[in-house]
Amino acid sequence: MKTNLDCLPCFVRQALDAARMATADEKIHWRVLQGVLSAAAEMNFDQSPPVMGQRIHRIIKSLSGSDDPYKELKTHFTEYALRLYPDCKKAVGQSNAPFETALRFAAAANAIDFGAVAEVEQPDSPVFIEQAMSETLFGHAEAFQQVAGSAKKILYLGDNAGEIVFDRLLIEQLPLERVVFVVRGAPVINDATLADAVAAGITNLVTVMDSGSDAPGIVLSECSDRFRRCFDAADLVISKGQGNYETLSDVDKKIFFILKVKCRVIARHIGCAPGSLVVKETG
Amino acid sequence: MKTNLDCLPCFVRQALDAARMATADEKIHWRVLQGVLSAAAEMNFDQSPPVMGQRIHRIIKSLSGSDDPYKELKTHFTEYALRLYPDCKKAVGQSNAPFETALRFAAAANAIDFGAVAEVEQPDSPVFIEQAMSETLFGHAEAFQQVAGSAKKILYLGDNAGEIVFDRLLIEQLPLERVVFVVRGAPVINDATLADAVAAGITNLVTVMDSGSDAPGIVLSECSDRFRRCFDAADLVISKGQGNYETLSDVDKKIFFILKVKCRVIARHIGCAPGSLVVKETG
Repeated sequence: MKTNLDCLPCFVRQALDAARMATADEKIHWRVLQGVLSAAAEMNFDQSPPVMGQRIHRIIKSLSGSDDPYKELKTHFTEYALRLYPDCKKAVGQSNAPFETALRFAAAANAIDFGAVAEVEQPDSPVFIEQAMSETLFGHAEAFQQVAGSAKKILYLGDNAGEIVFDRLLIEQLPLERVVFVVRGAPVINDATLADAVAAGITNLVTVMDSGSDAPGIVLSECSDRFRRCFDAADLVISKGQGNYETLSDVDKKIFFILKVKCRVIARHIGCAPGSLVVKETG
Repeated sequence: MKTNLDCLPCFVRQALDAARMATADEKIHWRVLQGVLSAAAEMNFDQSPPVMGQRIHRIIKSLSGSDDPYKELKTHFTEYALRLYPDCKKAVGQSNAPFETALRFAAAANAIDFGAVAEVEQPDSPVFIEQAMSETLFGHAEAFQQVAGSAKKILYLGDNAGEIVFDRLLIEQLPLERVVFVVRGAPVINDATLADAVAAGITNLVTVMDSGSDAPGIVLSECSDRFRRCFDAADLVISKGQGNYETLSDVDKKIFFILKVKCRVIARHIGCAPGSLVVKETG
């Protein structure tokens, strides 16, 4: 999808949040914002929002000297998610519809997205489970379960650190030997990298690869040849989160997008209410 | 007060809201944002936020050809406020503390501020009254009542259209012949101008003058000589809203600021929670 004018205030907010995460030096915060404001004034709205996100976070890394401003935050949310994991796993096991329950947890955990929001709530497991089970699940959940049951090559595109711990629950409902899990090629916002996948226990479960790119989404032209071969060969792509949706929603491919909708631009594009859990089929 | 980096996302959001209010032409929305982003990248943070607000809204007027993008919205909120006025007036009359009740209504009505927020709720009168009476009233309400009782020359700086209808309730608690009410010198955001004061019925109550400036606040160096003489001569200035607070909080003068806090920057500066009703004394 293209970038919307409504994305601009969010870019500026995101840049300020990230700059503060990278350094306490207020002069650098202002230099970052100057860079981002100037870049935004010349941006190409035919590109998807993560292309600008990538540019913003490159500016921040370059001016702050920090490779990974969200490193501590990512560790914190991985630990938080690992604390909730056993109760969620139990809830899946006791459910009459374990696939849908695991799907709901994976979608609800997409709330851990510091690209879209400045603060993320951390409910304890009973509250997380209750919310995930009671929220509206918009879209094509049944079709997703059917396709997932028969797919031969499944590419699972992860989104954020912490969230990917909950993705384990959904992956555990899939034929593990057919799944390849994808993380970002380098740190950007709180998106999961290989280190986060190791910490989340995903590397012990399925094959993990990275996209080859530091965009907070999947910009195919920027991804590694290896990633693109896997993408082309997959008969099912599971894509988590807003950034992956924004970059892949127009690609001609069987993709199921699983996300929690955190902004009005995405809500309008999908045609659901902000806050919804979504499974959206394309291709 | 100086401008904070946190004001930047809000400037961009405000510019987009206002551009859309001024014209349906998306090309002009983008030209407005380009102008605002470029101006923001060069801004002087020693100035108060309304100085940038003034610049933004001049850009919008110039590019859209609309003198008063919020005209219809201002009329709408004046009509809304006039519908609530009789019930609020009755509540003041029946109150054991009519001055504080009127003060609460005037402060709560400062929610009608499209500079600070993109959407404003419009509760009916029972809900408005209940909320205004139950919210925390932070600061120096008692000192304000004492000073107001003995002041000889009161300058009442209005803020937004619609809100000023509720200011009538507080003005009616003051010695009317000693009050001069001030509106903006030209349209900016949904701030009240002379036409809005006429529609609100204030011109029938007290002397009304304008500031001589199109800033969404009181930038003294830009105001008319006539306004500055009144400002200097007043022994009590009542200043409504965030924009007037931002431009006058550092001025050496007896001022009581009355506002509803709509953003974290102001909440931090005053030392209260976002959402609070505030009466803050300076000078």
